[in-house]
Amino acid sequence: MLVTTMSGTELEKVSSSKAFGGDLVKYRFKSAALGGLDASFNLFLPANASNAKVPVLFYLAGLTCTEDNGAQKGNFLGPAAKEGIAILFTDTSPRGAGIEGEDDDWDFGTGAGFYLDATNPKYARHYNMRTHIQLEIPQILETAGLPIDLTRVSIFGHSMGGHGALCTYLASKSRQYRSASAFAPISNPINAPWGQKAFAGYLQGGIDEAKEQYDATELISRHSDPVHILIDYGTSDGFYKAGQLLPENFHNAARQAGYDEMQVRVREQEGYDHSYFFVSTFAEDHIHFHANFLKA
Amino acid sequence: MLVTTMSGTELEKVSSSKAFGGDLVKYRFKSAALGGLDASFNLFLPANASNAKVPVLFYLAGLTCTEDNGAQKGNFLGPAAKEGIAILFTDTSPRGAGIEGEDDDWDFGTGAGFYLDATNPKYARHYNMRTHIQLEIPQILETAGLPIDLTRVSIFGHSMGGHGALCTYLASKSRQYRSASAFAPISNPINAPWGQKAFAGYLQGGIDEAKEQYDATELISRHSDPVHILIDYGTSDGFYKAGQLLPENFHNAARQAGYDEMQVRVREQEGYDHSYFFVSTFAEDHIHFHANFLKA
Repeated sequence: MLVTTMSGTELEKVSSSKAFGGDLVKYRFKSAALGGLDASFNLFLPANASNAKVPVLFYLAGLTCTEDNGAQKGNFLGPAAKEGIAILFTDTSPRGAGIEGEDDDWDFGTGAGFYLDATNPKYARHYNMRTHIQLEIPQILETAGLPIDLTRVSIFGHSMGGHGALCTYLASKSRQYRSASAFAPISNPINAPWGQKAFAGYLQGGIDEAKEQYDATELISRHSDPVHILIDYGTSDGFYKAGQLLPENFHNAARQAGYDEMQVRVREQEGYDHSYFFVSTFAEDHIHFHANFLKA
Repeated sequence: MLVTTMSGTELEKVSSSKAFGGDLVKYRFKSAALGGLDASFNLFLPANASNAKVPVLFYLAGLTCTEDNGAQKGNFLGPAAKEGIAILFTDTSPRGAGIEGEDDDWDFGTGAGFYLDATNPKYARHYNMRTHIQLEIPQILETAGLPIDLTRVSIFGHSMGGHGALCTYLASKSRQYRSASAFAPISNPINAPWGQKAFAGYLQGGIDEAKEQYDATELISRHSDPVHILIDYGTSDGFYKAGQLLPENFHNAARQAGYDEMQVRVREQEGYDHSYFFVSTFAEDHIHFHANFLKA
């Protein structure tokens, strides 16, 4: 089924499955932000979306994932159905840009877009996940007439997607998002190998450019507006132990910037690892956290 | 980590992830029932298993699946943790038997063991999933000293696994299982293409042999002991519409055998398909159903 949006973009309904009384629908469209490539997302609409517009929570997945991982393994749909909240699951990078070396590494290129807008000319035409998520998808939802209330939007994610959620939230000037949360986020990527590699590749200005928009610890340290942030990470997470996540750095920067436990809550979860078993355990908590603000 | 069981079988702990306060552990062992091949299963142990033995619910997955699908996508772990019930996720066939043609089809051979004991000599050494699940794995749990109460066991499954759960339950003479449930089960396989193909391949006696032990509709029609069975299927399930599942046949046979709604409940779920989105929607219901009997 093709839905032609007001802007002329065709939104194709790829598949649909009923879930928890609502529907999980996969959509595809030609993404201008991603240089004209096909982009897919999954949208869970709870049953109440057939009567009125519903709030939406964007979910950003981690390295190597697609728009499917969170929808299938996250344990988000049941709690979202109960709260009457839509969830939008994005992809993690453009697909098939054809850039040399793009598919060589699992932590850079395909499946590893790091939720930024690339400035290195080699990637700048296609690797613009920040714009794709923050501007393009909301516009598509609006023009396609989907029953989403774009004045009530929050954002969360896992690992690289936790980085994406925190940075997109904190860098947004217009209070576009009401709250942000993250499972095991890459919290201070300028000081971690994954982030350093990504920024050196995607950004012409490297780390210095990343500090401005793409490092949650840097962003919170310069922030003064009220925030609503929840972070969980597990003490048995191998990437945490390897220094890729650095949630303490974010936590400390938030406290130094004057944010208390009510505004920035960072929880250490004993014995949990980096997998979706960890994510699914705390999924309901995160949905309830966002519901506080989305339904306020 | 290797645990040598009393029978001399070595049970290898492959991986472990904390989930919902408990642990999901993958084990591997050399399976006598499967002709000496390595067999894997996932065992979810709720937190209370550290204090006392817990009841266990066996989950049998569908065609093409492994022991991982239900654990990752089924939405079973949260409800099981709340109820204090272990879940054991089995594989769907032997792996790597090296039989000619075994990997040619998605609905026969590897990933499609149909939860039977093969009598066709070509498959009889390796394709013995019935014995593997009903006898071998419980023995392994017992001898390895895992905190499972084998007097409190129930069984459920999806699609081919629903077939496996219903037939293993109904064919068990010793009241080994307290209850059985199924999501979109292949309910009358002797009258469906998948079942006919499987029985023609695995069983020397073909359909006639299958009638004795491997067709839930045949089994319930000859059954007289009390039963506790719950079945859900979706009206938008393509395999249901194609006549592969035939839940009405099972339902009718149960009613003709004198079982009422309290003993055999078959629920048609409007608009749901065959996917794990359907399974996960009704997962909590099924866990609660089994908890009634496992915790009685």
